[in-house]
Amino acid sequence: MTQELHIGIAGLGTVGSGIIKILNEKHDLFVNRTGTSLKVTTVSARNKNRDRGINLSTYEWCDNPVDIARNNNVDIVIEAIGGDSGPAYDLCKLALQNKKHVVTANKALIAHHGTELAQLAEEHNVTLAFEAAVAGGIPILKSLKEGLAANEFHHITGILNGTCNYILTEMEATETEFQDVLHEAQEKGYAEADPSFDIDGIDAAHKLSIIAAIAYGSKVNFDNVYVEGIRNVSLQDIHNARKLGYKIKLFGTCRLTDKGLEQRVHPCMVDQEYPLAKVDGVFNAVLAQCDNAGKSMVEGRGAGERPTASSIIADIMDIAANRASLPFNRPVATLKNHSSIAMEDTQNAYYLRLSVVDEPGVLADITKILSQDGISMKSLLQNNDKKAEYTQVVITTHLTQESAMNNALAAIAQLDTIKKQPHMIRIIEL
Amino acid sequence: MTQELHIGIAGLGTVGSGIIKILNEKHDLFVNRTGTSLKVTTVSARNKNRDRGINLSTYEWCDNPVDIARNNNVDIVIEAIGGDSGPAYDLCKLALQNKKHVVTANKALIAHHGTELAQLAEEHNVTLAFEAAVAGGIPILKSLKEGLAANEFHHITGILNGTCNYILTEMEATETEFQDVLHEAQEKGYAEADPSFDIDGIDAAHKLSIIAAIAYGSKVNFDNVYVEGIRNVSLQDIHNARKLGYKIKLFGTCRLTDKGLEQRVHPCMVDQEYPLAKVDGVFNAVLAQCDNAGKSMVEGRGAGERPTASSIIADIMDIAANRASLPFNRPVATLKNHSSIAMEDTQNAYYLRLSVVDEPGVLADITKILSQDGISMKSLLQNNDKKAEYTQVVITTHLTQESAMNNALAAIAQLDTIKKQPHMIRIIEL
Repeated sequence: MTQELHIGIAGLGTVGSGIIKILNEKHDLFVNRTGTSLKVTTVSARNKNRDRGINLSTYEWCDNPVDIARNNNVDIVIEAIGGDSGPAYDLCKLALQNKKHVVTANKALIAHHGTELAQLAEEHNVTLAFEAAVAGGIPILKSLKEGLAANEFHHITGILNGTCNYILTEMEATETEFQDVLHEAQEKGYAEADPSFDIDGIDAAHKLSIIAAIAYGSKVNFDNVYVEGIRNVSLQDIHNARKLGYKIKLFGTCRLTDKGLEQRVHPCMVDQEYPLAKVDGVFNAVLAQCDNAGKSMVEGRGAGERPTASSIIADIMDIAANRASLPFNRPVATLKNHSSIAMEDTQNAYYLRLSVVDEPGVLADITKILSQDGISMKSLLQNNDKKAEYTQVVITTHLTQESAMNNALAAIAQLDTIKKQPHMIRIIEL
Repeated sequence: MTQELHIGIAGLGTVGSGIIKILNEKHDLFVNRTGTSLKVTTVSARNKNRDRGINLSTYEWCDNPVDIARNNNVDIVIEAIGGDSGPAYDLCKLALQNKKHVVTANKALIAHHGTELAQLAEEHNVTLAFEAAVAGGIPILKSLKEGLAANEFHHITGILNGTCNYILTEMEATETEFQDVLHEAQEKGYAEADPSFDIDGIDAAHKLSIIAAIAYGSKVNFDNVYVEGIRNVSLQDIHNARKLGYKIKLFGTCRLTDKGLEQRVHPCMVDQEYPLAKVDGVFNAVLAQCDNAGKSMVEGRGAGERPTASSIIADIMDIAANRASLPFNRPVATLKNHSSIAMEDTQNAYYLRLSVVDEPGVLADITKILSQDGISMKSLLQNNDKKAEYTQVVITTHLTQESAMNNALAAIAQLDTIKKQPHMIRIIEL
């Protein structure tokens, strides 16, 4: 006999509406795949009368989204409101306390309150699921938790923000500077009117903190993610990267070492043959370096109405089929509080771009500072464009402690011959 | 309280030994992740005394692998014997009948007997799992069944054989002909002494038939896979592909249309910017074109002791955590017998390489035949290498029915000016 699961949806923006459309379109397929009729019973949104292209008349309407958590005709609550606190948080918390399963795509909420909500889910013996919160339509959390469950991860690295990847790809493809591509991306709807969450790396950092918690059995620790966005990446950097055999990508990387948990989001130069270097445009991708399975990568659409709804419905189907795993893959009581590795204690290779006055001794001054800080140079390119106002010097280094590089950069910036703030991008050898 | 699951392993080659090693190394981690102690109790292999680098003295030994299916101290049987019939089949069948879960990496067995074994598993309320049978360490079946459960698939296309992908990559990278690369691959252990299962496409076809059954809700139908291997791909084809903007890959593709289920494995020319075109070396990759999630790709190691063991243990952990899905994602009774689309009824674009005598009228003869068969040419390149014995003519076409192309090729082969069997590779526009 077909059982029924009753779904309440709070928030009817693109994601909430997308879920209703797909559940209607594929009702019978999902019955076939789960033995369960997935039935939306209750909805809530700010504006009841907006035209969403769906008929809401058959659903019970709640003016207050939190009322869905109190509704006896709801088994699963879909939170599609957004925001790391406020009604989204209140709804999820109350729903779990009232023994309702919760599914959300809200990365900010999980990055800030994931451990607490997982604890509530466990106490009340219901599921909290958020596959759609990380890399949209790509089932990366399920892969890490279940498909690759027999592995420990040397590192996990991802292209976690489609807006940034689109901008970097377009800068290279069209030889255009950052601001112009951003403006065009905003016109196309690939970037928000206020793009800072994306381009300053916050969105990627939310996702990375969730990946790290699942991969390394730790409590979500968003506050300790090092975050640097792509605003300062210039077309010159992209040209120089190409000459050096690299691509520039915004990576989120996490790894667990003897010293603690490293979580970082920043632009990287990476060998252009590395699998993640070949992922272009709005696509997201995550590469897990596994001790048994080896290099394992997934790539797909990280955002959008249907990709996000795809992952939310997959979570619902796991609940319907009674096969949902724990939110962080193990009981909250066993999650660790790993110490964090400060960025200055990490080891990286570096790319430096310096604007210098072309006079004798300038390179000697720079190389002297690097050597005083124990930094070993790998390459140096000096641009002899006589028409340019300043000479561009590009230096790459071997592996160096970040604190040493910070010292060197501060000293180089003080030189009279240095005419702009030195620009640095980390080179990642994965 | 920690429960215990007792595991019997039949076959102690690289995969069977790898499983024992990993289960020993990570026992406590797996307890933490599943709440279950995964304990090997019983083993069987052809030779008891071979040194495998593991201590077998604590396990019960069975001379006859099928005895593991009768052993009361075994909950899960791992079949690591191999072969599409014989002891592997007997063991799995009896184990399921005796209410033991069965996990295997045996693609030939599942391609030939998957539906029957799934039926047995269902009748006896146990799990049959074979994640490792397709693309080794990549959790592709879980992604298709669970992570992408909210999708229907326009097509699924994969690089499913690492040996072939290695050979094609090396031919291009080292400018070496097929036979020489094959020989080198055999020396490195990337190809078997008898390589025909790999290079003739059989292995990829086994895997494709399993993917198609899961993706399209059908009974496994290996016999209707069209199969063509890579023996006839020459360095000239690879050079020509590069000039045309393509890469040559051995793809397995399946899709369901109004006319039926299409399953095919053959060399393809594909745009060099297509994600699967960028997957090189021994790696496997599968791309699912999903109606909701869009393009979703996974890439990783398709073979080897630890990648294969990784997927087998993930299946065991799903069983331990009581979250295993049905073998083909839905009850066997609901699996369809889709009609098959014959290769000659498919539509493809084509690449033709002809060796012709350089005399007036030869191109006129060829183009006349193509036009008589209703085939529209897209490009023609004539190689003017005066030192070569014959002139090479390379033709690409627009979309054409395969039967028309077969007719045209037969007619072209009859021309006096054609000096070798015409060579054809399908161009796939995905």
